Amino acid sequence: MKIIVGVSGGPDSIALLHVLSKLRHRLGLKIYVAHFNHGIRSEAAKDQNFVKTFSKQLNLSFYSKKEKIQKKNKSLEERAREARFAFLCALAKKTNADAIALGHTQNDLAETVLMRIIRGSGLLGLRSILPKRIINKNAIIRPLLCVSRTEVNKYLKKHKLKYCVDKTNSQQDFLRNKIRLTLIPILEKNYNPNIKEILISLSQTSSLDYEYLELQGRKAFKKLSKNSVKLKSVHLNQKNFKNLHPALQRIVVRLSIENVQGSMRRLTLKHILEIEKLLKADSPYGVVSLPQGVEVLKKHQDLLIQKSSH
Amino acid sequence: MKIIVGVSGGPDSIALLHVLSKLRHRLGLKIYVAHFNHGIRSEAAKDQNFVKTFSKQLNLSFYSKKEKIQKKNKSLEERAREARFAFLCALAKKTNADAIALGHTQNDLAETVLMRIIRGSGLLGLRSILPKRIINKNAIIRPLLCVSRTEVNKYLKKHKLKYCVDKTNSQQDFLRNKIRLTLIPILEKNYNPNIKEILISLSQTSSLDYEYLELQGRKAFKKLSKNSVKLKSVHLNQKNFKNLHPALQRIVVRLSIENVQGSMRRLTLKHILEIEKLLKADSPYGVVSLPQGVEVLKKHQDLLIQKSSH
Repeated sequence: MKIIVGVSGGPDSIALLHVLSKLRHRLGLKIYVAHFNHGIRSEAAKDQNFVKTFSKQLNLSFYSKKEKIQKKNKSLEERAREARFAFLCALAKKTNADAIALGHTQNDLAETVLMRIIRGSGLLGLRSILPKRIINKNAIIRPLLCVSRTEVNKYLKKHKLKYCVDKTNSQQDFLRNKIRLTLIPILEKNYNPNIKEILISLSQTSSLDYEYLELQGRKAFKKLSKNSVKLKSVHLNQKNFKNLHPALQRIVVRLSIENVQGSMRRLTLKHILEIEKLLKADSPYGVVSLPQGVEVLKKHQDLLIQKSSH
Repeated sequence: MKIIVGVSGGPDSIALLHVLSKLRHRLGLKIYVAHFNHGIRSEAAKDQNFVKTFSKQLNLSFYSKKEKIQKKNKSLEERAREARFAFLCALAKKTNADAIALGHTQNDLAETVLMRIIRGSGLLGLRSILPKRIINKNAIIRPLLCVSRTEVNKYLKKHKLKYCVDKTNSQQDFLRNKIRLTLIPILEKNYNPNIKEILISLSQTSSLDYEYLELQGRKAFKKLSKNSVKLKSVHLNQKNFKNLHPALQRIVVRLSIENVQGSMRRLTLKHILEIEKLLKADSPYGVVSLPQGVEVLKKHQDLLIQKSSH
């Protein structure tokens, strides 16, 4: 089995790489180390060299890509994440890898649940980080998702492993760091000492519940959208759509948009509510514009989800 | 339409009673005021008199019950809630009322969502407070659930209405008050100024999603448990049960317990996980004891949910 391991050089990814490398013979793994150099931080070159040297020590092939992400707007971190992800996928394709392994831990999971709650999210978002996900046919796996940061640190100490320290971390992902460094400690101290476990459990039950809803939603979507999907636009009959339970309606809308747009990125509950308002309105015509150039068009009996023409 | 209005004398229930009283002719309401006297606080008698006098002013019939809740353990607040609820239900039966109206506001809703997250909860609990619920055939309605505490205060001021101040509130429901007075202000100031709206929206989407899951769960429960329900014990075939999606399995377990116990009170995710462990275990026999004298028994091909014999 061929695996790409995304390694920033931070503690989590160094531990992940080390443990996978130790297990490679037993598990029959062929490992490719992938390092994405954001060019954002001054230590970027140093980090890249560190990961390269460490890979050499472990006798693993090393790949890197440097791409300076411009500080155009607030979503710097998001664009960096997208560029890194594109690099990993391209490398997976090139090496014909079976999976991309990332170093997220239990702590990332708990922090993400809380971040999603605070930013506003439903079941879909509360799932937080999944242990395995398929994105654009790439299997993303997170072997350390059931391991805490404390355990990672113990492991690093035990094996005398060095790692890079991200000094500007706090600027890159402000909300996440405030949650990690301030909010979770407050919640642990004053509200529930097991808050991390509670958040992890919420993520797990949300995954399970969403899985079932999505399964039923996909069945309904298939039934309602037949023949129309190939054209990269989805054509639904409003009457049939309205016969669905409102929870399934929302999933069918999401799936329709995913079909046209290629993903559900940037789609929020606010958009879904706008579409519901459009459907309820008396007027036989109407349109809702969505991010990434998709529109939902109400037209007599039909509901069309398509790329906007302008 | 006959309505019982639960009135503690606090701002929310006074506003609710006043507005319902003003609308009574237009909506054709017959209102019964119900005041439960916990006997916990020193102002209890004063509060009761206040509500009684206010009811008289509005020309409404007033009912009260005094029941001193013993401070036996931590769940004082819960037992007080249960005793109050039993009083409301008894009065509803006596007066043949159609509904019991309570004064919960948007703020209570948001606080409850956060409390449920912190204590540990899934979709079921995240629904928080529902605008309408049927409990033991009693319709509980919360007309102010879409109204904020600020709006309630404005209303009270505008109509020059007096209300009782609960000085010991903070001792009775410690976690809720800490959430209201400390955590929500921190979240509003440092994380998201719209946190209350976000939490309300989470409650709404959770309600919708849970409604669908429960609907499907009930169908599955009906199919799996036929004939066995009448005996106040539920008899499921393990193989058929395991064929259900795990999300539905959990709902079927909950419904089985509700059937035997009369409610899902005190049932937590921890119990559900114990039952799942029991089912997965190799042993053909096993038992999980649940609160309120219910047990889940694994026995060869069967899974029995019943009142425990001891």
